[in-house]
Amino acid sequence: MNERGYQLLQETIERLLRRNAYLHLNKVLKKTHPADIAHLLTLLNERSARNVFEHLPEKEIAANVLSELEPVFRSGFLQELEVNRLVEILSVMADDDTADLLADLPEERRQEILGLLSAEHTEDVSELLAYPEGTAGRIMTTDFLVLPKTLSAQNAIQEVRKAAEKEMVFYLYVTDEEGRLSGVLSLRQLVTAPDYTPLEKIMTQDVVKVNVTTDQEEVARMVSRYNLLAIPVVDHSNLLVGIITVDDVIDVIREEAAEDMLKMAGTSGEEINYYSSVWKNAKARLPWLFASWIGGIIAMNVIGAFSSGFSNRIAVFAILATFIPVVNGMGGNVGTQSLSIIVRGLATGRVDSKSIWREIFRESRVGLLLGVTYGILLALAGIVFTREGYVGVVAGIAMCVNMILASVLGTFLPLIAAKFKIDPAVASGPFIATSIDVVGATIFFLIAYVLLV
Amino acid sequence: MNERGYQLLQETIERLLRRNAYLHLNKVLKKTHPADIAHLLTLLNERSARNVFEHLPEKEIAANVLSELEPVFRSGFLQELEVNRLVEILSVMADDDTADLLADLPEERRQEILGLLSAEHTEDVSELLAYPEGTAGRIMTTDFLVLPKTLSAQNAIQEVRKAAEKEMVFYLYVTDEEGRLSGVLSLRQLVTAPDYTPLEKIMTQDVVKVNVTTDQEEVARMVSRYNLLAIPVVDHSNLLVGIITVDDVIDVIREEAAEDMLKMAGTSGEEINYYSSVWKNAKARLPWLFASWIGGIIAMNVIGAFSSGFSNRIAVFAILATFIPVVNGMGGNVGTQSLSIIVRGLATGRVDSKSIWREIFRESRVGLLLGVTYGILLALAGIVFTREGYVGVVAGIAMCVNMILASVLGTFLPLIAAKFKIDPAVASGPFIATSIDVVGATIFFLIAYVLLV
Repeated sequence: MNERGYQLLQETIERLLRRNAYLHLNKVLKKTHPADIAHLLTLLNERSARNVFEHLPEKEIAANVLSELEPVFRSGFLQELEVNRLVEILSVMADDDTADLLADLPEERRQEILGLLSAEHTEDVSELLAYPEGTAGRIMTTDFLVLPKTLSAQNAIQEVRKAAEKEMVFYLYVTDEEGRLSGVLSLRQLVTAPDYTPLEKIMTQDVVKVNVTTDQEEVARMVSRYNLLAIPVVDHSNLLVGIITVDDVIDVIREEAAEDMLKMAGTSGEEINYYSSVWKNAKARLPWLFASWIGGIIAMNVIGAFSSGFSNRIAVFAILATFIPVVNGMGGNVGTQSLSIIVRGLATGRVDSKSIWREIFRESRVGLLLGVTYGILLALAGIVFTREGYVGVVAGIAMCVNMILASVLGTFLPLIAAKFKIDPAVASGPFIATSIDVVGATIFFLIAYVLLV
Repeated sequence: MNERGYQLLQETIERLLRRNAYLHLNKVLKKTHPADIAHLLTLLNERSARNVFEHLPEKEIAANVLSELEPVFRSGFLQELEVNRLVEILSVMADDDTADLLADLPEERRQEILGLLSAEHTEDVSELLAYPEGTAGRIMTTDFLVLPKTLSAQNAIQEVRKAAEKEMVFYLYVTDEEGRLSGVLSLRQLVTAPDYTPLEKIMTQDVVKVNVTTDQEEVARMVSRYNLLAIPVVDHSNLLVGIITVDDVIDVIREEAAEDMLKMAGTSGEEINYYSSVWKNAKARLPWLFASWIGGIIAMNVIGAFSSGFSNRIAVFAILATFIPVVNGMGGNVGTQSLSIIVRGLATGRVDSKSIWREIFRESRVGLLLGVTYGILLALAGIVFTREGYVGVVAGIAMCVNMILASVLGTFLPLIAAKFKIDPAVASGPFIATSIDVVGATIFFLIAYVLLV
């Protein structure tokens, strides 16, 4: 459904709600894909959204809608939902989706709900919840078809027919007597094999797999690199404990990209929220701005200290001051360019933390080219716009040095963060901008001081 | 394979190359996944990479390696490759990958190669190349299994068995006599159906599909929203012309996320390149910095104009100047936060261009909260650090106003761009930073002028 489609659906639903035409509403919802209903809920006001959710025709649909809901939107939604209704919905939801959903609830409510679910479901979900957030163990599903390697192709097809409710079966994982992963075959390989061949003769033995503790970003990289539809998850003794399907991987890729971008701008990635209150939004952004504020105060004192050095040539200082925005601004922008290139390169594996010096060497040359270009332009502009043209030349030199340094800083900081296993995206924007403000002001006035006083 | 694995592989390969142990090299390459070889090539120096590529054991492996290579790295690689060798490799490559690859070559070379390929392959590839870049038509494959709706389940299974070389078969698309898409069924549905049922009784009629002209970002959104493994592509008369598989969609999502981030930082997304020359890298970044430079020059003249207003109180102007970095910097950072939130929201469909006023209202309140907080802090710092405390109070007021305005600008610009169908990510970072530099300097000195002169 496209934007126009959602608009029409929203109008229809709102009209039906106003008229209390619940029978008709029920019919419309039955014909709408759960993913579309989930998106629709975020477009409606809170009361209508709740009303629509309560009128979903079946608990299976409600379960699908809940698993498709944006996590940030969902948590508010769940807090209001009656426990019994929620338990009813969770009873038909896949383990991994249930775990994902319960992870957002307060500890007490989570325990209450786990106590009310069926014993088997509770056990599986608790097991998933035991793995830390962001690991393969947390996003895998434990509900998959597994076949012993001695089974014949014909019997395996019977197993597939019986396993109708299992998570999307297209790869079939084959294990030995102890449950250790020993091979994989696609449903297509199975269908095309002679009836009595044992699976171990058809299967591929060289299986791409991950460990329960593997980071979800690494899982996403592997699935994407090897063009997989699913990846098996094993524990430390190679026991097959779950699978991760490509649709969950797509969610990881989207989340991580959004997170990186928001983190870089200093908004603490995960907390930011399109639906939550203004106050929460501001709170998430406040701390990262603090770095910038501190930097600004330092820059202020640096400039203040230099200004006293110009006390006998205060007019020159006043002209220099007019150059501060352009010198700092250009440095900041070049630094942010370098930063984005490196952060993205690290995330996609095109750059790694071992190549710090090579990357710095490359970026410093780029910075030199850009710095010389804009330095000359600034010197010319300085001569044209200020009466004291030599101040422009000084500013041009300072900007050139500043831009080279900004490129190096923008490269160095994320790489050094990666080296120390710190997420290079975290609020790197404000940190870079601030470092460059301080360093830029110092260099600018230092050069001016040496050449002009 | 992880980072450590690649390092070991690289060392092994380099050692074998130094010793000219090509037989051994051949064996190692045969055991390595093409995607891993592709990644390895980007780690080696140019000569070794070419050497490894020339020693790939089979043309099928070479084809897979080429399709897994980063497009930016690949184009340089292809230019050096002998035409006959390339044609040989392309002859075993899927249509969509061949089209993708040829699109990067100069027109003349592309035509030469198309002329040397088999007639059928040439036709299919030329058809794909006729669709504009970034559309569904360009990334689809035309090599897929299609079944008539009157076929029985049993016969359909026979067709699947025969179609071993077609692109991953897990969804089977069913068409009517004219080739119009009429339904879909999964391989699993087929396997579990009674032998003599015609496909039209088993298939799902409500197929999620896209048009050849649909934007690839929209394709990615649909595949991700509905958790699909593939999506069929139809032309204007609903004829089934291709399919897009989830692995290609993952590439699109990764590319678009990287592009957005790089564009926002002002590096013209697609052109930036982890392997190309420093000069090309600088050239891609230079134009976007120009916006920033112009802004800086305007800010310079604004401050210059005000400074003459302070001519009788030049000492006050000097103190004010020390506040420029903190006032501009904080505005820039808040604006970038708003910008990132909106650009990401637009990309993921959580924000749309119809809600401009709602988003601006929300962001301006966030800006107010942040502005008041840091405005008060700046006023206090001003009193502590400068001898003339009232200048600090003026700066605090100016920063508060500036931060509110920056939030609004950071929200407004991408939304208005989206409204006019301009990509909101394009170089928005430098534009925002610059607008805020100019507006910030004007507001700051205007408030100072009114209150202090």
